Amino acid sequence: MFLTRTEYDRGVNTFSPEGRLFQVEYAIEAIKLGSTAIGLKTKEGVVLAVEKRITSPLLDPSSVEKIMEIDEHIGCAMSGLIADARTLVEHARVETQNHRFSYGEPMTVESTTQALCDLALRFGEGDEESMSRPFGVSLLIAGHDENGPSLYYTDPSGTFWQCNAKAIGSGSEGADSSLQEQYNKDLTLQEAETIALSILKQVMEEKVTPNNVDIAKVSPTYHLYTPSEVEAVISRL
Amino acid sequence: MFLTRTEYDRGVNTFSPEGRLFQVEYAIEAIKLGSTAIGLKTKEGVVLAVEKRITSPLLDPSSVEKIMEIDEHIGCAMSGLIADARTLVEHARVETQNHRFSYGEPMTVESTTQALCDLALRFGEGDEESMSRPFGVSLLIAGHDENGPSLYYTDPSGTFWQCNAKAIGSGSEGADSSLQEQYNKDLTLQEAETIALSILKQVMEEKVTPNNVDIAKVSPTYHLYTPSEVEAVISRL
Amino acid sequence: MFLTRTEYDRGVNTFSPEGRLFQVEYAIEAIKLGSTAIGLKTKEGVVLAVEKRITSPLLDPSSVEKIMEIDEHIGCAMSGLIADARTLVEHARVETQNHRFSYGEPMTVESTTQALCDLALRFGEGDEESMSRPFGVSLLIAGHDENGPSLYYTDPSGTFWQCNAKAIGSGSEGADSSLQEQYNKDLTLQEAETIALSILKQVMEEKVTPNNVDIAKVSPTYHLYTPSEVEAVISRL
Amino acid sequence: MFLTRTEYDRGVNTFSPEGRLFQVEYAIEAIKLGSTAIGLKTKEGVVLAVEKRITSPLLDPSSVEKIMEIDEHIGCAMSGLIADARTLVEHARVETQNHRFSYGEPMTVESTTQALCDLALRFGEGDEESMSRPFGVSLLIAGHDENGPSLYYTDPSGTFWQCNAKAIGSGSEGADSSLQEQYNKDLTLQEAETIALSILKQVMEEKVTPNNVDIAKVSPTYHLYTPSEVEAVISRL
Amino acid sequence: MFLTRTEYDRGVNTFSPEGRLFQVEYAIEAIKLGSTAIGLKTKEGVVLAVEKRITSPLLDPSSVEKIMEIDEHIGCAMSGLIADARTLVEHARVETQNHRFSYGEPMTVESTTQALCDLALRFGEGDEESMSRPFGVSLLIAGHDENGPSLYYTDPSGTFWQCNAKAIGSGSEGADSSLQEQYNKDLTLQEAETIALSILKQVMEEKVTPNNVDIAKVSPTYHLYTPSEVEAVISRL
Amino acid sequence: MFLTRTEYDRGVNTFSPEGRLFQVEYAIEAIKLGSTAIGLKTKEGVVLAVEKRITSPLLDPSSVEKIMEIDEHIGCAMSGLIADARTLVEHARVETQNHRFSYGEPMTVESTTQALCDLALRFGEGDEESMSRPFGVSLLIAGHDENGPSLYYTDPSGTFWQCNAKAIGSGSEGADSSLQEQYNKDLTLQEAETIALSILKQVMEEKVTPNNVDIAKVSPTYHLYTPSEVEAVISRL
Amino acid sequence: MFLTRTEYDRGVNTFSPEGRLFQVEYAIEAIKLGSTAIGLKTKEGVVLAVEKRITSPLLDPSSVEKIMEIDEHIGCAMSGLIADARTLVEHARVETQNHRFSYGEPMTVESTTQALCDLALRFGEGDEESMSRPFGVSLLIAGHDENGPSLYYTDPSGTFWQCNAKAIGSGSEGADSSLQEQYNKDLTLQEAETIALSILKQVMEEKVTPNNVDIAKVSPTYHLYTPSEVEAVISRL
Repeated sequence: MFLTRTEYDRGVNTFSPEGRLFQVEYAIEAIKLGSTAIGLKTKEGVVLAVEKRITSPLLDPSSVEKIMEIDEHIGCAMSGLIADARTLVEHARVETQNHRFSYGEPMTVESTTQALCDLALRFGEGDEESMSRPFGVSLLIAGHDENGPSLYYTDPSGTFWQCNAKAIGSGSEGADSSLQEQYNKDLTLQEAETIALSILKQVMEEKVTPNNVDIAKVSPTYHLYTPSEVEAVISRL
Repeated sequence: MFLTRTEYDRGVNTFSPEGRLFQVEYAIEAIKLGSTAIGLKTKEGVVLAVEKRITSPLLDPSSVEKIMEIDEHIGCAMSGLIADARTLVEHARVETQNHRFSYGEPMTVESTTQALCDLALRFGEGDEESMSRPFGVSLLIAGHDENGPSLYYTDPSGTFWQCNAKAIGSGSEGADSSLQEQYNKDLTLQEAETIALSILKQVMEEKVTPNNVDIAKVSPTYHLYTPSEVEAVISRL
Repeated sequence: MFLTRTEYDRGVNTFSPEGRLFQVEYAIEAIKLGSTAIGLKTKEGVVLAVEKRITSPLLDPSSVEKIMEIDEHIGCAMSGLIADARTLVEHARVETQNHRFSYGEPMTVESTTQALCDLALRFGEGDEESMSRPFGVSLLIAGHDENGPSLYYTDPSGTFWQCNAKAIGSGSEGADSSLQEQYNKDLTLQEAETIALSILKQVMEEKVTPNNVDIAKVSPTYHLYTPSEVEAVISRL
Repeated sequence: MFLTRTEYDRGVNTFSPEGRLFQVEYAIEAIKLGSTAIGLKTKEGVVLAVEKRITSPLLDPSSVEKIMEIDEHIGCAMSGLIADARTLVEHARVETQNHRFSYGEPMTVESTTQALCDLALRFGEGDEESMSRPFGVSLLIAGHDENGPSLYYTDPSGTFWQCNAKAIGSGSEGADSSLQEQYNKDLTLQEAETIALSILKQVMEEKVTPNNVDIAKVSPTYHLYTPSEVEAVISRL
Repeated sequence: MFLTRTEYDRGVNTFSPEGRLFQVEYAIEAIKLGSTAIGLKTKEGVVLAVEKRITSPLLDPSSVEKIMEIDEHIGCAMSGLIADARTLVEHARVETQNHRFSYGEPMTVESTTQALCDLALRFGEGDEESMSRPFGVSLLIAGHDENGPSLYYTDPSGTFWQCNAKAIGSGSEGADSSLQEQYNKDLTLQEAETIALSILKQVMEEKVTPNNVDIAKVSPTYHLYTPSEVEAVISRL
Repeated sequence: MFLTRTEYDRGVNTFSPEGRLFQVEYAIEAIKLGSTAIGLKTKEGVVLAVEKRITSPLLDPSSVEKIMEIDEHIGCAMSGLIADARTLVEHARVETQNHRFSYGEPMTVESTTQALCDLALRFGEGDEESMSRPFGVSLLIAGHDENGPSLYYTDPSGTFWQCNAKAIGSGSEGADSSLQEQYNKDLTLQEAETIALSILKQVMEEKVTPNNVDIAKVSPTYHLYTPSEVEAVISRL
Repeated sequence: MFLTRTEYDRGVNTFSPEGRLFQVEYAIEAIKLGSTAIGLKTKEGVVLAVEKRITSPLLDPSSVEKIMEIDEHIGCAMSGLIADARTLVEHARVETQNHRFSYGEPMTVESTTQALCDLALRFGEGDEESMSRPFGVSLLIAGHDENGPSLYYTDPSGTFWQCNAKAIGSGSEGADSSLQEQYNKDLTLQEAETIALSILKQVMEEKVTPNNVDIAKVSPTYHLYTPSEVEAVISRL
């Protein structure tokens, strides 16, 4: 009886014969089912935009939070399991507050991202802070620190990359192509808003409204757009 | 031998190749077998109504508690495994009491909901407070705080949403459709009572009586209706 | 290879794809093999009656204890695994004694029942007090407190209900039907004794004697009937 | 693939679909392979008699201890795994000594039996005192306390019964039948000795000698018969 | 799929359906592969003799220790896994030293044997002192205390017996038969030496030399024979 | 049913019948999928060069760190799982800082390498610092201490070797052959830079640019080349 | 379905039905794949010689350490997994240093060997010092203490033997035969050097050079030969 690859995910965090970690790959699949999120870095700051899937008209759109503040100079957009993302964000909030308290200055965006990834990497270890499985979530972390604006992208393996622009979630493939065509380093923040929302519009199945998208910027502090500010961006499309 | 999906639920909290968490999905199935519960938010407060399945005339209907008080400004209706719900509610009661003691003010409805979901998310972790499996219960949490009345809906994955109206349990599909037709933001509390009970009546197999339904409101404090108050709502149908 | 339902009970406390907890269901099967027990609540107090299976004439009937005192105002009848029941009763005795010591007053019947169910619910958790499997026992808990007489029924899932009358064990199906026909709220305690024993007689395979049944009442304190008191009830049948 | 019952014993202490605990049932099988032991209660005291299997003439018969003293007023005969029995007896000795030390009086026979069964019930729990499997031993516990002489019978499930007479081990079925025919409550201690040994003689394959049986009484203190005392009983057969 | 008996050894310490503990039985098999050891008790003291398998002429025979001192009045011969035996002997040495220190007198031979068996019985328990599997070793424990000389035999199940004479290891079956023919209680120590070595000679495949056997006595203190003392016994054959 | 080798990786850290540790071998496979890294030791210092796979033009090349500083006198190049490498490097940074603090002098390169390998060896042990699986990463550790420049190579088994030159990752086979042809002990640091980059060029699928390679030296302190310094080396090819 | 022997290694440290410990046997297989090491004891001291497999000309031969110092009077040669050997040697170094510190004198060679084997025996126990699998390494331990020179041989089962001469590793079978022919107790240390190297030469596939063998002696202190000292021995062949 030759066992198939599906057997390897039992030991939550073990290699397959080809050197692969299936639980991490399966968690990445979970994200491919998630809603789309887009981030763009400009010299003026970073823009985040997400699709919100409102499954029922009775749901309060503002309670579907897919962009969250971590610290006043850092925010993040997420795709995947919301409850997992909330745990990571809560962890990051504690880390950044502790840093401010201990050192009297804000934590850098890279250190914050590294702290999130350390937690993500140690799944299946059995210690108190870690999960028994990978976190099924990808994050786009937007921030502004002494090095200026920055945008990081994390995946369930605990790896992170710095990007100029990045899309995650079910529409990420098409959105990434569009970003490569439209992005350049000299974009204004306003142009970035427009690009983010126009790309989101392409990958969404419904009409874009202030109810089913969220936009935020870090420039240099975090700000989640009000419905009327979102409406203003929509009107520019 | 290619293993089928049913193998994945063994590692209680691991991803399947498609990025799914089966134990959570199975727990959601448990709720689809549960009795129906309905919640509606109005400007005056929130109404909760539940079906009580009295399997024997010898059972005391008042001991089948499917609506419970969490704090004087928060109550919840449940569908699924009663014993699991009691554990969650007991946990929330301790949290809200601790908050009152530490800060001298009531806990917000969102924080209370988040505390419940944190516990729900960490199943299978092996630490002292968590369960070895997901909690097989969904809750409709009704409350009133400095932001006015609010209604939250939680599921076994530890995710929560804010809603205007929501149905859970075996009759939730039909009930949700009816809610979408009949709900509007300007309902009075009395109208909400009537809608809740008329929809419950449609999905129940027996005649509605004060014995087999419970109604409660948070407006602005929690109140479980007496049999005669329930009778009064029934008479309006 | 599609695995059958029998695979699900391995992870002691996990959901099956249909949202079921098989170990709990199997434990309930254990009770269906147990001896029959009956409880009736009257305004004067609560009556408990159990069948005792004396497998050998050399066994001392008084050592087959299927009705036990928890506190002076609470007693319980059991069906299922005797050793499990003894553990639960011992736990409840400690809880009620602690409550008397801490608060200087008896624990209510509902709190006592909740304490028993909390222990039952947490099987498989690995902490010190809990079992590694469900408790294979159902209890009928009879008590009298500031709210007057009450009768609770618990099952291995850690759920409990308040009842006017209830039968558990191998003969419970027929006995419950008979109870529904014969029970009314205005029964005297003596009438309840007679009904309990006459129903027990129907489901037992042998002749009823003071050796193979036990009767107890809580009115308002716990009292286990002496053989001659049992004989007196038998003579009224 | 439908799994057979033999799969259920893996989770050491879990229910089968029929509500059975197989590890306990298998442990009971271990006792059916054990040597036969018999106990009889009379008004003058309790008699225990056991078969000793001396597999080699080079073995010292006195080192095959199948009747052991627990305290000066309690002794026990065993069938099954000797090493398990020694652990239980050692536990009971500590309990009875502690009781004497703390309360200045002997522990009752029932409390001693309950203490033994508490330990037996908790197998597979992982705490310090318990075994990882059921104790593969049955005991006949003979004692004398303020309630006079008593005889208890325990099995691997942690259940116990009070008896007038009882046989355990490989010959228990035939021996129990003989006991029912010959036992009455007015037997003298000497008659009980004779009955015990004559029944043991029927179920043993070899000739009864002071080398291959042991006899003890608790009347009111524990006494293990010397070879010549055993010889005296044999000569009465 | 009916699972075969070989499945039962996975749960290291669980019963099979026939009431057997396979890991213990398999450990006993390990001893049947071991070298032969023989013990004889006389009124003057106890003699131990073992076969040493010297697999290479380059091995130092004195480093193959199969007879070891536990205390000055106790020694033991072993068959099975040497490293396991060393652990047991080391444990016994600590116990006997502690006893001397605490009570100012030597530990009895039976208590020492019981201490060894307590450790052996608790395999698979996960506590600090115990092994995760049975100890794969049998011991012949020779000692002299206030009760005179004694010889004990232990097996991997943690059971022990007192013997007049006993053989263990691969040649034990034939050796036990010879011992039964030749042993009587009035042997002198010198006669016992001769019998032990002549029986060992029969079961060994090579010529007996001071290099491939060890002899020791406890009379009343432990003494391991020098090569010339062994030579003297050989010359008497 | 004969189980295939793929079964052995379940017990994360156990031998196969041929004496192999498959999880370690599978982790080595993970490295064969990694990007190529090259190290060369000269008398003047050590050179490290790595290929950076920039999967999207929107990724910031400087955030793909495949060469990292451990201490001012030690750096390392990596191939395999980046997140694992970061954990190892972070561990090494703490060790070297602790050493400086405790002893007032830098840690030797060998001790640093040993500390990294100790952590790598203990995977699957369950203690706090270790991983539940092997680290899926190989390192080339370049350093300079009292013994002059040195280059170490580590693999996932926790083994390390000192080398004059070494290549790791997907192109390591061809690169190692080229190194053997071109390496000699009298190379200048500049010649080593040229050799490293020319070999890297052969195994890379794209044109070499300052964006897709990184170069660093330890001579005697760690220095990561700026884009223009990399450009200068490229221009010498 | 009858399970094959390959199933037994899952429970890392359990017996097979034939009384075997497969994980230990598999670890021994790992050593049969290792490089060859040879030890000889003379009256003047002990000689160790090992083959070093230099897989690449770029590897620094001195970093392939297969002979290591434990204390100034003890050294060891190894075959098998290098990283495992390093852990054992590190453990022994701590033990010998502690002994010197506590008692002011060197630890004997036998005690040091016993300490190493205690650690090796307890694999799979889960305590802090032990491995989750057997150590895949054999050692030849050479030392000099108050009893003069001594040579010990250890295997993965935690067993050790004292030897006059011994070979381990892939060429051990042929080397052991040669040792038996050429060894006698009156060899000088120089003769032992020559024999060791000439035998190593036979089992190695390449020409013997100072680069691919290491030689050490303990006489009475540990000394690892310099390349020129090795060259001198080679020239005597």
